[in-house]
Amino acid sequence: MQLIKGIQFLLSSTSDQWLQQAIANPLEVLLDHAHCERKAAGYAIQLIFRYMSEPGLPEVLSPLAREELEHFERVLDLLYSKGHSLRPLPSPPYASVLAKQIRNEEPERMLDSFLVAGIIEARSHERMSLLSLHSPEEELRKLYKDLLTSEARHSCLYWHLAQRRFEINIMKDRLSQLSQIEASILSDLHPEPRMHS
Amino acid sequence: MQLIKGIQFLLSSTSDQWLQQAIANPLEVLLDHAHCERKAAGYAIQLIFRYMSEPGLPEVLSPLAREELEHFERVLDLLYSKGHSLRPLPSPPYASVLAKQIRNEEPERMLDSFLVAGIIEARSHERMSLLSLHSPEEELRKLYKDLLTSEARHSCLYWHLAQRRFEINIMKDRLSQLSQIEASILSDLHPEPRMHS
Repeated sequence: MQLIKGIQFLLSSTSDQWLQQAIANPLEVLLDHAHCERKAAGYAIQLIFRYMSEPGLPEVLSPLAREELEHFERVLDLLYSKGHSLRPLPSPPYASVLAKQIRNEEPERMLDSFLVAGIIEARSHERMSLLSLHSPEEELRKLYKDLLTSEARHSCLYWHLAQRRFEINIMKDRLSQLSQIEASILSDLHPEPRMHS
Repeated sequence: MQLIKGIQFLLSSTSDQWLQQAIANPLEVLLDHAHCERKAAGYAIQLIFRYMSEPGLPEVLSPLAREELEHFERVLDLLYSKGHSLRPLPSPPYASVLAKQIRNEEPERMLDSFLVAGIIEARSHERMSLLSLHSPEEELRKLYKDLLTSEARHSCLYWHLAQRRFEINIMKDRLSQLSQIEASILSDLHPEPRMHS
């Protein structure tokens, strides 16, 4: 399995097309980012509800959910300061296609849930790294620079949650399958600018 | 409408029977408290998802959800320090009976969602006040003392969210109905010791 250097989980790097689309539509990507943060918080809380008796899980995912909410509030502040507010935005197929890969039976469901979350966080990290360099406004570059390390940390955290419970070879095999699917979803640029288009 | 002095939302004060039951079963109440905090966080996030475009709502409920998660972690720490962990606990009928009062059509659904949340927070405040005085262990008294003011604040916050959107007489009438139902649920002591038994 070939992983992009320095980015665990990902098999492909983001295309220039995506970057051009994103920096041409910074506000829409920012709005989508707000939605991503609130969804990430909701996902972590859902996992706490589902696996509350798992040792080491609720006390790790609860601070993660809090951090996602902090980021959500920060993005919201920036949206407000620009005279915008939160509004519904159609999601790209990315997360829902990945969620469909999560198997229904335990313990596979748990493994897949952690890996899919780890992949999404890793992709957010990679894309925020690009946005922290190439966004058209200083305050956007700063925002993405401030947040991107958390995305990488969250990605590792999901990996460690899996490592405590599953054999490394089983994890790597499944990650390989899921990463290929993830790369394939992104191989066609979604027409609407999104964090994961 | 007669409100218990100093406790907005509530029509009845907690019975001695409940207090005796709770202080005789501090660990079970503490475990239930952990569940209450995670559910309160989940409820706030659910409202953010449902009403994301409402001015002033997501930026108020997101910090509230974070605070509920902080309390969840604090209760979890205490459980762990006592050699216990989070485990499923059957819920008393309290919250589900109140949730059934929430009407399906908007804007009534929103009003009821705020009022029901406000009532539950107010009851938590009242009961934590009692537990902060009468719990059998110093660290439990301290925990409840530290957390109870947040419950009162959250209760007010839900009231203010409603006030921005609804006429005061409509709010008072509906609160009166819901508070009566709440008092009636608690008039029979639930056999299992819970924060809202």
